[in-house]
Amino acid sequence: MIEVQPVLLSGGSGTRLWPLSREAYPKQFLPLAGADTMLQATWRRVEPLTPRAPLVVANEEHRFLVAEQLRLIGAPPARIVLEPAGRNTAPAIAVAALIAQSAGDDPVLLVLPSDHVVRDAGAFRAAVHAAAPAAVAGALVTFGIRPSTPETGFGYIQATPGEGVHKVLRFVEKPDAATAQRYLDEGGYYWNSGMFLFRASRYLEELGRFRPDILAAARAACAHTDPDGEFLRLDRTAFAASPSESIDYAVMEKTEAAMVLPVDIGWNDVGSWSALWEVSEQDGDGNAHHGDVIAVDTRNSYAYARRLVALVGVDDLIVVETDDAVLVAAKDKVQEVKQVVARLKAEQRSQAVLHREVHRPWGSYDSVDVGDGFQVKRIKVKPGASLSLQSHHRRAEHWIVVRGTARVTRNHDVFELFANQSTYIPIGAKHRLENPGNDMLELIEVQSGDYLGEDDIVRYEDVYGRG
Amino acid sequence: MIEVQPVLLSGGSGTRLWPLSREAYPKQFLPLAGADTMLQATWRRVEPLTPRAPLVVANEEHRFLVAEQLRLIGAPPARIVLEPAGRNTAPAIAVAALIAQSAGDDPVLLVLPSDHVVRDAGAFRAAVHAAAPAAVAGALVTFGIRPSTPETGFGYIQATPGEGVHKVLRFVEKPDAATAQRYLDEGGYYWNSGMFLFRASRYLEELGRFRPDILAAARAACAHTDPDGEFLRLDRTAFAASPSESIDYAVMEKTEAAMVLPVDIGWNDVGSWSALWEVSEQDGDGNAHHGDVIAVDTRNSYAYARRLVALVGVDDLIVVETDDAVLVAAKDKVQEVKQVVARLKAEQRSQAVLHREVHRPWGSYDSVDVGDGFQVKRIKVKPGASLSLQSHHRRAEHWIVVRGTARVTRNHDVFELFANQSTYIPIGAKHRLENPGNDMLELIEVQSGDYLGEDDIVRYEDVYGRG
Repeated sequence: MIEVQPVLLSGGSGTRLWPLSREAYPKQFLPLAGADTMLQATWRRVEPLTPRAPLVVANEEHRFLVAEQLRLIGAPPARIVLEPAGRNTAPAIAVAALIAQSAGDDPVLLVLPSDHVVRDAGAFRAAVHAAAPAAVAGALVTFGIRPSTPETGFGYIQATPGEGVHKVLRFVEKPDAATAQRYLDEGGYYWNSGMFLFRASRYLEELGRFRPDILAAARAACAHTDPDGEFLRLDRTAFAASPSESIDYAVMEKTEAAMVLPVDIGWNDVGSWSALWEVSEQDGDGNAHHGDVIAVDTRNSYAYARRLVALVGVDDLIVVETDDAVLVAAKDKVQEVKQVVARLKAEQRSQAVLHREVHRPWGSYDSVDVGDGFQVKRIKVKPGASLSLQSHHRRAEHWIVVRGTARVTRNHDVFELFANQSTYIPIGAKHRLENPGNDMLELIEVQSGDYLGEDDIVRYEDVYGRG
Repeated sequence: MIEVQPVLLSGGSGTRLWPLSREAYPKQFLPLAGADTMLQATWRRVEPLTPRAPLVVANEEHRFLVAEQLRLIGAPPARIVLEPAGRNTAPAIAVAALIAQSAGDDPVLLVLPSDHVVRDAGAFRAAVHAAAPAAVAGALVTFGIRPSTPETGFGYIQATPGEGVHKVLRFVEKPDAATAQRYLDEGGYYWNSGMFLFRASRYLEELGRFRPDILAAARAACAHTDPDGEFLRLDRTAFAASPSESIDYAVMEKTEAAMVLPVDIGWNDVGSWSALWEVSEQDGDGNAHHGDVIAVDTRNSYAYARRLVALVGVDDLIVVETDDAVLVAAKDKVQEVKQVVARLKAEQRSQAVLHREVHRPWGSYDSVDVGDGFQVKRIKVKPGASLSLQSHHRRAEHWIVVRGTARVTRNHDVFELFANQSTYIPIGAKHRLENPGNDMLELIEVQSGDYLGEDDIVRYEDVYGRG
């Protein structure tokens, strides 16, 4: 068996699953179908196939999330390629292919979105084995999902009906309902899953043939990379200059080397709340409920509760309750959720991008209460982590440690605080918070001042390289 | 014009409007239709009719709410009769009648539920004027609402069709839809609003005739009252011994003196979320939204938001979002909300009874964050108010003042704290918190300990007489 090089694409922003998924912490980083996050589940699915470490292409903003989530499940140290801007899949896979070749070999790339559900991981791996000889021989293999319903939300791949890897006849756009039904009846049509298997060199050859501009941009972006530990920063200007295009448009629809392997692997792209309802375990009434949900006279509903959600007399409804936003949507109208996100973005509201609990490389903070002239945050600092040395012009801070150990720098003093101890940081004082212990540090911060925005911060030193 | 004695009945628990209305802070104390609470609006409606102060019959648990809400709108000092237990309207009105007579006169009582909406206060007062001569002459007058729809949720009063006060033919139970339609078509049927006008003596006479047991219990309950400032505590055992019965069953359906005045006053009992939607101002899509609501492709819905609520593609839906519970209900199934409350009560969950923000005579506290071994509360103390002198066995408390002035007693020390100052109350320390200022005191309390229940409290002195 060949040693495939897994390439995990983590560039999505997942706004169709708002408010659980938000730009700063999207779908692939959430445990939407099981205890693992989607990214973690994607890696676990691939890991038995290969001794190679993952190669991840991710949004620069998500770099600490990718690194930490893979570390938490014991993945081998990943190479995490940071996209300075989203340019769709063709350029992303191109830089992954170039970097995969940089050790001098020409591995077979297994390209996978990191935010899909695959219920039958064994069948998935068997499919990769079955597709490998064709990929080694130079084909660009795509995995086509055998359709179970006349789905209008996906593109289709048409091929001669049959088993095993065979030639793609054509790629077709998302069909209307009648066409989708005809595809299902006729056979030989498969859902385009966005998963691929091909040699790095073959993808780059075909990309060079059809879109030399994208290949050139990818080469330029890789020519001046800036390694930063496990992160690999691309040349910002060069990558940004690439056209934004999908691998389907740029290569797969044009190349003579496109092959498809029809598969039954329990695939779902979880591209909407209704799709998540479909893949979730349902009770006898068709309800899939997470958290503290009381349902009376309710059917075929999905509910996600942080606090308590009570449903009364509703059918085919999606209810998603988070710390700072609640979505209530008809299951057949969930595609309109993006209109809500668009409106929030237009109004520059934080709920479009951030969760109330905001993740940082050192831990997280959660604004649990806000009032006139004050704000209360719950702050978590990871073992060994440290916030920047900083000061504020317009707010004082009271810190009460509720768990773990804090090392506090306050002007020229350095001291430790334990659970149930507190301190005070006056306006203007240079201060730093560190967790010198082996357990999570948790503290309550009460901010007091006439302006409490996150931008009132002067950073003097930051181990995470932030200005 | 006679000087009517307003009797405001405030005994309801309003669970049909859960989660906004809860046992400890029900419907009549909420500003559901305008800036005033329902109780305040009821008093404002009555006030121009009479120089007499309100006589309120209320649940003992709500005494501070009643007193404060009436004080806030400048009502003359009310007499607030405290029911030790709910016994429905016949006994409640009996004790009100007995107390109203105690000054030696025999006033005409205007008996009003304190949780109804009356849109046309002028028409209401005109109706009271119109009914007064009959009441003075000895009739027990009820105000019958001219029906606008074949409502099945109300009882009806049948009378000879016509204007002005006239004789009741009979009281009829809540009808089925066909019967309600017939009532509407035939005319002469009116909704039973639960509002009455009669002399105290006449009600007591008729009650004594038909239910001497209830009258006897009411007399016994009033024979040993315990005045406590504006509050009048009834004899607990005597009142509890009364049968629980409505004035309709006990008296109105039986007495020959029952009269009805048909009225058009914009009345609504706000007996369900759909009723509240009906009386709320609606936009062009039939939506009535309060707070931060974003609606896409949504019609005829009611939404109440504390945070952000987004509605997508829904019709005829009720969404009520509070600090600790969210209700999502089909508008034609809102009567099933009581099943949710019943289940919460059976599971002894606080959301059945309490809001997250809990009101106390001295102010309120709100548990804004809870974690392992700690809890964060926002505490508000009214000007001049004081918490009890107390101590805790299993928790320490950190206090950070964020607004106003606190006077802190800690063992033998007494000191003042201003905004942005803090202190620490160790486990076991006797302490008291007071607001010596003229403005609201607001502070953040961080509790730390292995048990944080409200019952870990030893009270040494309490100005509100709590043990």
